[in-house]
Amino acid sequence: GLLSKSRVVLSVSSHKPYSLYSSFSTSRAKVMTTPPNNIFDSIRADEIDGVLNHTVDRYDGVIISSKALPTDVVSFQTILGSSIQFWKENRRRGVWLKVPIEKSVLVAPAVEAGFVFHHAEKDYVMMNHWLSEDENRMPLNASHQVGVGCIVINNGKLLMVQEKNGPLRGTGVWKMPTGLSDPGEDLYEAAVREVFEETGIETEFVSIINIRQSHTALFGKSDLFFVCLLKPKNTTITMQPAEIAACEWVNAEVYLQQGFFKKSPIFGVVNQQIRQVVSAVAADPNWVVIPDNEREAAASSSPSSEAVGTDIGAVKVGVNPLTSKDLPVPSLVVSKLPNGIRPGESVVYHFPV
Amino acid sequence: GLLSKSRVVLSVSSHKPYSLYSSFSTSRAKVMTTPPNNIFDSIRADEIDGVLNHTVDRYDGVIISSKALPTDVVSFQTILGSSIQFWKENRRRGVWLKVPIEKSVLVAPAVEAGFVFHHAEKDYVMMNHWLSEDENRMPLNASHQVGVGCIVINNGKLLMVQEKNGPLRGTGVWKMPTGLSDPGEDLYEAAVREVFEETGIETEFVSIINIRQSHTALFGKSDLFFVCLLKPKNTTITMQPAEIAACEWVNAEVYLQQGFFKKSPIFGVVNQQIRQVVSAVAADPNWVVIPDNEREAAASSSPSSEAVGTDIGAVKVGVNPLTSKDLPVPSLVVSKLPNGIRPGESVVYHFPV
Repeated sequence: GLLSKSRVVLSVSSHKPYSLYSSFSTSRAKVMTTPPNNIFDSIRADEIDGVLNHTVDRYDGVIISSKALPTDVVSFQTILGSSIQFWKENRRRGVWLKVPIEKSVLVAPAVEAGFVFHHAEKDYVMMNHWLSEDENRMPLNASHQVGVGCIVINNGKLLMVQEKNGPLRGTGVWKMPTGLSDPGEDLYEAAVREVFEETGIETEFVSIINIRQSHTALFGKSDLFFVCLLKPKNTTITMQPAEIAACEWVNAEVYLQQGFFKKSPIFGVVNQQIRQVVSAVAADPNWVVIPDNEREAAASSSPSSEAVGTDIGAVKVGVNPLTSKDLPVPSLVVSKLPNGIRPGESVVYHFPV
Repeated sequence: GLLSKSRVVLSVSSHKPYSLYSSFSTSRAKVMTTPPNNIFDSIRADEIDGVLNHTVDRYDGVIISSKALPTDVVSFQTILGSSIQFWKENRRRGVWLKVPIEKSVLVAPAVEAGFVFHHAEKDYVMMNHWLSEDENRMPLNASHQVGVGCIVINNGKLLMVQEKNGPLRGTGVWKMPTGLSDPGEDLYEAAVREVFEETGIETEFVSIINIRQSHTALFGKSDLFFVCLLKPKNTTITMQPAEIAACEWVNAEVYLQQGFFKKSPIFGVVNQQIRQVVSAVAADPNWVVIPDNEREAAASSSPSSEAVGTDIGAVKVGVNPLTSKDLPVPSLVVSKLPNGIRPGESVVYHFPV
């Protein structure tokens, strides 16, 4: 071998966050390998002469330390070549290399050495190199964007917008407020945020009505689009003029019977569900939306009155208080709960329990 | 200006696929800009001396042609500098640069010129450069991975596995078959595929029972995990030995009462739903699973007999035939339908209509 293996310093890393990743990993990921932000049971092996500082994950994958990367191309080429030889001799199956943007001169020599791209964020590009003869089992990058569409119902009317940009510009077509979720944002939060940003209406998230999946999103990716039911807390629209050309409380049938939808079987199903929801909400004695002017009048005469009608669907850490009886139609409510088996909380969308 | 604007050749591109992207775009994307795989209403402007070949999207964004990129660094630096000056003078708001892996020497000079990374796939890295003084409104990259967990019910028992790798290795914990969806794969397909790959059991997708969202996936991304109900078409397990340590039809309560779950409020809700489903399926006269040995015996004596019990939940292009009456519990069925307003089909998960 290139290097004396007796000089390898191995010690079990103390960095072992418990992860449930494998409970929903691909076949690929289950076998190989754990990428750099998820190093558990990794072995430190970063004191070997002539080999780039790195750790080894439990799937025999190598994670090169970004901090210790040289900044000049010739040094990098030399040590990368000897490192790859060392890892092959040690039967490592693949290598992860995160190149920070300030060291982007290292991208081209990494490609020369056999690395390909995996994913990128603003300030780095992740590359990897499968060394084994077996099928490449390194996990894939993110596959989906997540969008929300918002059904906000007030006395038989839906909160609707016309967009200033995009393919519907100038068509006069009414659409529900929509948007993509921000990184790290729960989709129920995205729904509340998008409605407020576009229309100035504050809402409570109630439930998910249906979900559309397609594979025609930007950059060859897929998207999941969640149609959500929300209850308004106020009624006076403050339109966002940069994006929105018109915003009104629109009669539900005016929205649903637009010619635009007539051509689309997929909207046919979605709109049939929306019609059911509108009709169920109209019959629901708990779904009371007090117009802003009435609420203000009531507030001035009686300062202790409730700001809004019955408060349903508020999300807190705990099981959502909704029961089937309270929900106007079958749909998925949200509960935010501690993970228990690992730190933090998750959100689950479920039928009322 | 650096270049005579009178020499700009502008012609409307014939490449205008209709897109509904903006119906679920972010605020960012609505204003700026259309990225390279989604060029509609773009203007060809690729015959200007001293400027990289490019198109301009409807949001005043520049898309550099990858094919016309020079391969040597000095030529690229020169023309990129003069191009950026030209685009600034023409009030372009941002620039997209897709660097094919075989031209990776261009990454470092692009960074020098102000580009950052946006996303990457195996054979390219996408970079961009916001030129405007306004807030950067270029769309974000994909945010989620999508996983499925599969509840397969056969006479009060659930199809369960123990994994060879990952954090549950060696613990004896039973879990449902799980996996990530492949690129471009619908989640109902992923559920059927994962069950078959891990256990050899063929299934029909019936419905989505609940959805978990978390923000602790690989590479700092989020994930959506769909718990799906499936009906088995056969009963003889063929375990996949590379990933799976054990696979059995397990009594539902043996699974649900595992100590592993006791610590987890989030699994508490998920498991409560699973318990409801198991109980509803047990009471459902339509949910008949014929054991392989009985089916084979019946087939040999009567060759025209049905291979499986009542066929529910099969997905075809059209509205799913399920009605509330047929579904054991409230859950989201799947319909695959033509988009109508644009080419292709989408899948919608919805309550039975």
